[in-house]
This record gives sequence, C-alpha cells and structure tokens, in this order.
Amino acid sequence: MNHAILLISCPDRKGITAAVTNFVFIHGGNIISADQHIDEQSNTFFMRVEWSLKDFDLSTAKIETAFLPLAKKFSMAWSLYFSQQLPRVAIFVSKHLHCLYDLLLRHRQGQLPCQIRLIISNHADAKVIAKEFGVRFLECPITPQTKRAQEQKELLALKKEKIDMIVLARYHQILTQNILNHFPNRIINIHHSFLPAFAGGDPYRQAYQKGVKIIGATSHYVVRRLDAGPIIEQDTVRVTHRDALADLVRKGQDLERIVLNRAVRWHLQRKILCYNNKTVIFE
Amino acid sequence: MNHAILLISCPDRKGITAAVTNFVFIHGGNIISADQHIDEQSNTFFMRVEWSLKDFDLSTAKIETAFLPLAKKFSMAWSLYFSQQLPRVAIFVSKHLHCLYDLLLRHRQGQLPCQIRLIISNHADAKVIAKEFGVRFLECPITPQTKRAQEQKELLALKKEKIDMIVLARYHQILTQNILNHFPNRIINIHHSFLPAFAGGDPYRQAYQKGVKIIGATSHYVVRRLDAGPIIEQDTVRVTHRDALADLVRKGQDLERIVLNRAVRWHLQRKILCYNNKTVIFE
Amino acid sequence: MNHAILLISCPDRKGITAAVTNFVFIHGGNIISADQHIDEQSNTFFMRVEWSLKDFDLSTAKIETAFLPLAKKFSMAWSLYFSQQLPRVAIFVSKHLHCLYDLLLRHRQGQLPCQIRLIISNHADAKVIAKEFGVRFLECPITPQTKRAQEQKELLALKKEKIDMIVLARYHQILTQNILNHFPNRIINIHHSFLPAFAGGDPYRQAYQKGVKIIGATSHYVVRRLDAGPIIEQDTVRVTHRDALADLVRKGQDLERIVLNRAVRWHLQRKILCYNNKTVIFE
Amino acid sequence: MNHAILLISCPDRKGITAAVTNFVFIHGGNIISADQHIDEQSNTFFMRVEWSLKDFDLSTAKIETAFLPLAKKFSMAWSLYFSQQLPRVAIFVSKHLHCLYDLLLRHRQGQLPCQIRLIISNHADAKVIAKEFGVRFLECPITPQTKRAQEQKELLALKKEKIDMIVLARYHQILTQNILNHFPNRIINIHHSFLPAFAGGDPYRQAYQKGVKIIGATSHYVVRRLDAGPIIEQDTVRVTHRDALADLVRKGQDLERIVLNRAVRWHLQRKILCYNNKTVIFE
Repeated sequence: MNHAILLISCPDRKGITAAVTNFVFIHGGNIISADQHIDEQSNTFFMRVEWSLKDFDLSTAKIETAFLPLAKKFSMAWSLYFSQQLPRVAIFVSKHLHCLYDLLLRHRQGQLPCQIRLIISNHADAKVIAKEFGVRFLECPITPQTKRAQEQKELLALKKEKIDMIVLARYHQILTQNILNHFPNRIINIHHSFLPAFAGGDPYRQAYQKGVKIIGATSHYVVRRLDAGPIIEQDTVRVTHRDALADLVRKGQDLERIVLNRAVRWHLQRKILCYNNKTVIFE
Repeated sequence: MNHAILLISCPDRKGITAAVTNFVFIHGGNIISADQHIDEQSNTFFMRVEWSLKDFDLSTAKIETAFLPLAKKFSMAWSLYFSQQLPRVAIFVSKHLHCLYDLLLRHRQGQLPCQIRLIISNHADAKVIAKEFGVRFLECPITPQTKRAQEQKELLALKKEKIDMIVLARYHQILTQNILNHFPNRIINIHHSFLPAFAGGDPYRQAYQKGVKIIGATSHYVVRRLDAGPIIEQDTVRVTHRDALADLVRKGQDLERIVLNRAVRWHLQRKILCYNNKTVIFE
Repeated sequence: MNHAILLISCPDRKGITAAVTNFVFIHGGNIISADQHIDEQSNTFFMRVEWSLKDFDLSTAKIETAFLPLAKKFSMAWSLYFSQQLPRVAIFVSKHLHCLYDLLLRHRQGQLPCQIRLIISNHADAKVIAKEFGVRFLECPITPQTKRAQEQKELLALKKEKIDMIVLARYHQILTQNILNHFPNRIINIHHSFLPAFAGGDPYRQAYQKGVKIIGATSHYVVRRLDAGPIIEQDTVRVTHRDALADLVRKGQDLERIVLNRAVRWHLQRKILCYNNKTVIFE
Repeated sequence: MNHAILLISCPDRKGITAAVTNFVFIHGGNIISADQHIDEQSNTFFMRVEWSLKDFDLSTAKIETAFLPLAKKFSMAWSLYFSQQLPRVAIFVSKHLHCLYDLLLRHRQGQLPCQIRLIISNHADAKVIAKEFGVRFLECPITPQTKRAQEQKELLALKKEKIDMIVLARYHQILTQNILNHFPNRIINIHHSFLPAFAGGDPYRQAYQKGVKIIGATSHYVVRRLDAGPIIEQDTVRVTHRDALADLVRKGQDLERIVLNRAVRWHLQRKILCYNNKTVIFE
C-alpha cells in the first residue's frame, strides 16, 4: 500500500496543523501518523504527516500542485515522498567492513526500505562482499594526486545510478565540496566517538588516553566542517580500566552498527528534519 | 499562561485530527503540541492536543459544551484539563522514605505541577518530613482488625482534601477495592522490580536469588490484581555477582525515585492515556 | 603466547589466594590477571587466575599433578585451561539466522577464541551460510516421531567433532536430557526476553501484550527446566507504545546478538563460574 | 569489624600478588577482597587488598612498619587505610543544592562511610540545609578582591576540622592552587557534561545548542587544568528535540546526583587508584 509523506517546516502561526490535516481529509486520505514540533527559540514549526493513498482522490503526480497554495500561504519549506518510491543508496567504505556488512544484512532482512545500488571504496577489501550481496562495486584508490580525478569518477557513477543518498560506513576519506554540493543533508556518516568529544582521527585511541568511562558513536549528516554536521543519533557503552584499546574498538563497533543503522533507517523513512545544524526526528 | 489539554480516544476513522485541530483554530487557539497514535490491533485513535488560551474566544467553562458535538460525532472518550488547575495529590508511604523525600524535593524545585496536600502512612516515620515540608500528615496504623476502619478514615481525609490522584511511594499495604473504585487510573505505584518479573513481596531478594544481571523498577497504575496494572515507566541498572542484596537495594532505590518521578510528572502533565491494560505516553 | 587459566571454587578460609599465587610464582609464572570473589551466604571462595607460560618451569602436561596437593588441601573444585587450546564449538539454529551470522562474523574478525566445527539445524535455511563460512552443516529435521533418532545422530556428530561447547543461537527445539547430560554448563542459550519475565514461547508477543516499556534478552546455561538455567548476561532496550510487535522483534534482535556474543566470549575465555544456579563472571 | 585496606602501585614483575597475599596470611588475616590490574602500556601493577583485622597478629599501628620491607623490595607506592577510621569530608556548594541534599540524605541512610564535618559556600542558600542536617556551615562570599582572603579562611576551617577530602557539589568557583596543593587527588568535582565534551561554563546550554542526542555527567579529581583531571565516573541519558534547555537541566541533575555519589562512595571505600591522569576503580 502506497503512503504519502509530507515534511514541512515554516514560521509558527495559528492554523497550520488544521490546514494540513484538512488538506489530507478533504481529498479522502487516512492519516497514518502526524507529528509536529515547535522550536520556541526560533519560532519554527515542523511537521511530518503520513497518509494512506488508498481512496485519495489525487494521483501522486497531482499532489504537489494541489498542495502548493497552502505551502505558499504559510511560507513552508516542504518535501513530499512516497513510500513505494525506494531511495537509491550508495555506500562508501574503506577497510573496516562491519558497518557495511550490517547494512547489507538488515537490507536483506527487509529492515531498510531502499535500493542499495552501489558500493564505493578506496580499497579492494569490500569487493567480495559486494559480489556476495549482488551490489555493483566501484574501487577508487585515492592518493593526493588522484583524489580529484577519482571523485569525478565517483560522481559519474553516483549520477548514473541516480543515487539519492550516500552512507559513509567507515569511509576514511574526506569528501570534497564537489560531492557535498550534490547531496545536501543526504550524506550520513558514522563517527566512532561521542561527538563533539574526540572528533577527527583515531577517536578510540583518544578516548583510551583520556580515560573516559563511557564511549560512544555518533551518526550525523556530513557538512563541510569535519565531524560537525547535524547529529542524527548517538549511543554509548560503559568501559573500565580493564578495557584495552582493542576492547574499546570491539565494544564500539557494536555501537557503530546500531547507531548508523538507526540513522539510515530514519532517513529512509523520512523521519528527519534539519534546522540550525540540529535534527528533529519524528521517531 | 493557561493552556487547555484535551485527551481523546475513539475508533479510528478519517478526519479526526482535522476536526480537532480545526476546532482549536476557529476559536483562535494556538496549538502548543499535538500528538496522535493509532493502535492498529484495535483500530483505536489516541490524541493529545495542548493549546494556549491566550486569545481563545471561549471561556474555560464553555469549552466542553462547544466541543461536545464533535466528541459525539466521533464517539470519543475524552477529558479536558487546564494547566493552571493544579491536581491535588496524596502520597501514601510506609517505612522507606527515599521516594517520598524525592517527590517533595522535586515539588519544591518546581518540577511537579501539583499541590501535595496530604501524606498518609501506616507508620510514624514520615511525620517529621511532612512537617518539614509543611504537608498535612495522617497516621493510620493498620492491623488486620483495623484495616477496614482505617481505610474509611483515609477515604474521608482524601475526600476532605479533594484529592485528585494518589501516589504510593513505597506503601506496603494493599489498598482495598473501596479506595480503588474512587481513583480509577489515578493511583500510581512504584514496584521495585522489572515487572512482570518479581511481582509481589521482597523483589530485591527474589532478584538476588535468581542471579539476574540487571534489576529494574516499574511504576504503574494500581488495579485490583497485585502489581498487574498498566505500566507507565520502567528503568533498569546493571548488577554483578559482587553486589550483595544490600547493593541491589541501594542501586534499586535510585531507579525507584527516577521511575516514580517520571510517571507522576507525566500523569500531572496529562500525557498518559490508558487502554487495554497498557499506556500510551505522549512524552 | 600460551597462558594457563585456573578456575577454582572451594569453602572460604584463610590463605587460599596466597597459596595459589605462590604456586604460580615459585614455578616462575607471571600472573596476567587474578580475580576472586567470596559468596558470603554460602561462604564459598571463587578464583580465576591467568598466567603466562613463558619461563614457567612446568610443562602443560605436568601442571595438574603439581597443583593437586594444593587443590586437595583446600577441597577445591577446579579446572585448568590453556589459551592456545581452542574450544571446539557447535552451533544449533532454526530459522532465525541473525545470531548465527553474528557469531560467524565475529569469529572471522578474531573476537571469539574457538573453532566453530559444526552447525546443526532442524531446517535447511542455514545451509548456505554454513557453506559460505566453511563450516560443516548437519540438517536434522525434527518431528515428534523422529526427535529421538535425530538427537542420536546429533550426538554422534558432536562426538565425532569432539565438541566442547554448544551454542543455541535461536534453536527452537528443546534438547532432551540425553544431550544435556553430555554438556553440563557447556550449552549456552539465548532467550529473547528479560528472564525470568516471559519464559517459554513467543516472548516478544508476551512483552507486547503486557505493555512493558523495556524489553530484554538473556543468555544462560541450559538446564533441564526450560529457560531456568544460570543467567550469564542480560541487556535491555527501551520501547514505546509506537513500537509494533515487529519493532520489538527488530530491536530485540540487536540485543540477542550482543548478549549471546558476550556470554559465548566469556565462556570461551574461561571467565564464568557457576554455583547455586547463578554465575560469577570475572569480566 | 575493622578491616585494613591496602592500595598499591608499582612496576609489574613476578611475585607481587603472592608476596602481598602471603603477608596478610602469615599474620593471620582473612582476605575479604583482592583485586589487581596491570596496565600493559606502562607495565604498572595496581592492587587493592582488603582483609579482616579479626585475629590479625599486628596492631593497626604496627602494620606499616611490618609491610615496609616488602614495599621497598617492589618499589611500591602504597597507602594503608582502616575501615573504622571514617574520612572527614567538606562539601563546597554554590546555589544549586540538589547534589548537596543528595549526599546528606545518602549519608543519613548509611551509604557513605565518612563524617561530613563542614559545608562551605559562596552563598547563603545552603545554610538552612546545613542546619537541618547538623553540619557546620561556613559562608565565604567571593569577589575578585576577596577571593584570596576567603580561601585563607576556608583553608583554616579545613585544617581545623582535619578534613581528608573535599567534594565540590556544584561549586561554581575555581579553586586556587593553594587549596589544590593541600588535597592532591582528594578533591572530587561533578561536571554537568560528558567530558571532555562541553568543559567550562554552561555545559547544558552548550549541549542544547550542539543538538546532541545524549547528555552526560562526569565526576573527576580536580587538577590545575579546568575540568581535565582523572575521570572517576560518567553516566548518560537520552534527550530529544522535544527537550528544551530546562529539560536537559532536569534530566542532567539526576545524573549529577548519581554520578557524584558513586565517585564519592568509591573514594571513601578506597577503591580508586590514579595514574597517568586516569583512574583504576576496583569496584
């Protein structure tokens, strides 16, 4: 059964919820879920509404036009999605493959509503897994000299596969502005620390040397500044003086998988709105 | 600033959200928050909507009448609350006073929107705390012979103080049906285990003997069957073989305080709906 | 580098720690870790000591004999293990394969010090995974009529592969006493609830219907009574009224993997001692 | 019953555990608990051993002298404590009183083995609580001009009360080197963030603006560099976009209480060893 999902943000004022839910009602839609949030600091209204298209009297092609006057009236930033239109995903990975494996397995179990079209890596290690799961694999080894050219190659492949979103599943290269520009708030990274603590390289070692009693993992949208984009999800696990660096890595990898998976799933389910370098998540 | 809060449950069908939010809009109300949930198994719709009464064109006394036709149309079970009308609370306690202390301190900090009117105990231990916080104290020692008469005394006091809700903050007596009847879904108990595990007496000892690796606490509405009412909140904490029974008690008491406080606060904020011996919590 | 690991339990009295650590010292061993615990209720002493065999003046074959007088003096129940002697493991599984996959991946990553020799299932689903990871697969479909004969077949295979421990990675059959007798405290099960709550069949549905706010998973040694053996590890995750039964399953499967993995790893590292239907875990 | 507790750190080599436990044994002591840890990076050995003094053949006054040769042989840094000798504690507090209240209540419940001798504040707010619990209160209002003189006054009071350890229970002043010098690794602070994230002022606001999905609290020993001393304990709690700054404060205060209490209790139980700006905690 196809659903429509509407994500809205606009200045808060009276009557928005009534207007939006009425729009769905008068066209015969049955609301499956409706969530709203008001950020009082910025007086911004956020809404996610999902309704069944069964008996809806507008075809999917005509909903945008029909909604436009209402959107204009309230100065909305908005987007419309359909649950049957599965986003096309590319996964970037380097040598640590646990997150890649995890995403592929969950996808196979039906937990991730998307098409995984492409795996890109600067190493060959993931090739055999890509083959095992029947996903196209693109190896792009990167040196300072080749980085620019390789990214062009990657962009071409992303374009050819009509990729909607990118997951950096432990990809140890910094994407250049060129790629970022094509995927605003559509690239999700997993960072293996509890951000903003231990941004940058080797966060488990940083945590180990600091002697923290809890480690974390953070998934966030990628922005120009390293590890500084809007945080989508975080989780933590307890460590003790008994845990060597290798134990932090082992414990942390469980977090990475879970935290990245949650962020990707919520993105695919259109449950995330970004504002002010933060996220609203209608979980 | 006074807010109105409407809690609704009814059979799900098209147009409920639109109708309710439109009702608020046409009378000039500004929605602060709106949450809904659909239980698919029973096809039941739940909603909580809170709006500011500033510029609302109906006086508080007239809202119910104005809403009635809409409520009838959708066969709603519903209740209307006002944030400025602080519920009147009675706390029952026996000899463990940590939960009582915690509620009184949080109330003093402004975290609990209510009036604490009465403390009732079958022991004298809490008397000095009641005095310290300026709350009326009623001592009702209970023996099998006096139980009935004492409960009558308690009921009278509850009635005289116009009590809206009761908190059992480690009260080690079973309330009789007589009291339960007067406070349906308005008596909150804290049980010191992760229900349904270890219902009944001495749950920490039960947990210790079973050798569990995690203990918990559960707050729930009180129903006739012991420790079996709708669960409002639970939380857990890790224990090890090193923890003696006294350590379980110590760790558990931190949980009890936090879990009971959350449940009471959500109840006071009118965030809880009961159905089917479960709770919907619009946190 | 080979290590020796000694697990000891005996009545508590003065001088046990001194005697054991002195035994290691006089033979030239360097202690890597030493843990002890005293259960005050039963006055039982538990110890785990691990030392490097580099420069140890007894060969592995002679340690037992050398230690025997000391063990007798203190009436010890004890076992001696060597880190280079990898336990031989069999995994039983039915149709849910996420735990099996997880164990195989962790083993491949070097996180589980064992040899996975055998996968046994009452269904064919795991066959392809077994092949992928190069593990022998034995399919034993079970009906009430064939159960006895199939278990004989399983026992033969376990014997032939010299299996040391069995992991029930979501195996939906009850093992008969015959198999249990051969592997006392050497069969680990994962139960998908927070035991002792929701023992038996379909625990996610039980949890859903009860309306708990937290679900859990429990790994335990298998004993004759269903889901009642010594608990090794538990963990929990929060759920809300928004989570349908399928969400409980999804969230719970992450717990199952993590909790089962911890229990198996600790067992393989010889960190678990059982007593009184409980476990001491020298993590 | 009086116990002796020995905390040891020294370069790792063979025979330390045997030597120490043998020392206890030959003098007739019964070991209650013995823990050890080896930091492989620095090859440092840490030990905590606690034994009953019942039937011990050395008086408390003579244990140090008797142990000295052994300590010298292994180049130990060590300290000896007795459980009946309750540490004398001073609590510093400013205007947020929830941690102070919590420590006093737990002390009254018998959870903190110490004498609370003194409460010092730069404000008068805590005066009434100090009186309620019968603890001496010293008000030292601080301005840039008076800071030096006031700290002299504080030092005098600390000396007069023979204070062993200081707890900064939300004390919003930076202690000068003068006080730090007198209490090395004996001043515990609670910082209301998950350090090293959000050190310095107003951490809840920092966390709110960053949009983190989890907040934390950290207790640590105070060193010269702000919020940078050895971490003793941390804990975290989940927040969402729905939580306003005030909610972060409310949720965080529960963490602060629990985390500070754990750290203080472990310190009082002599379970903490410091090295390399980190802590070993024999919990």
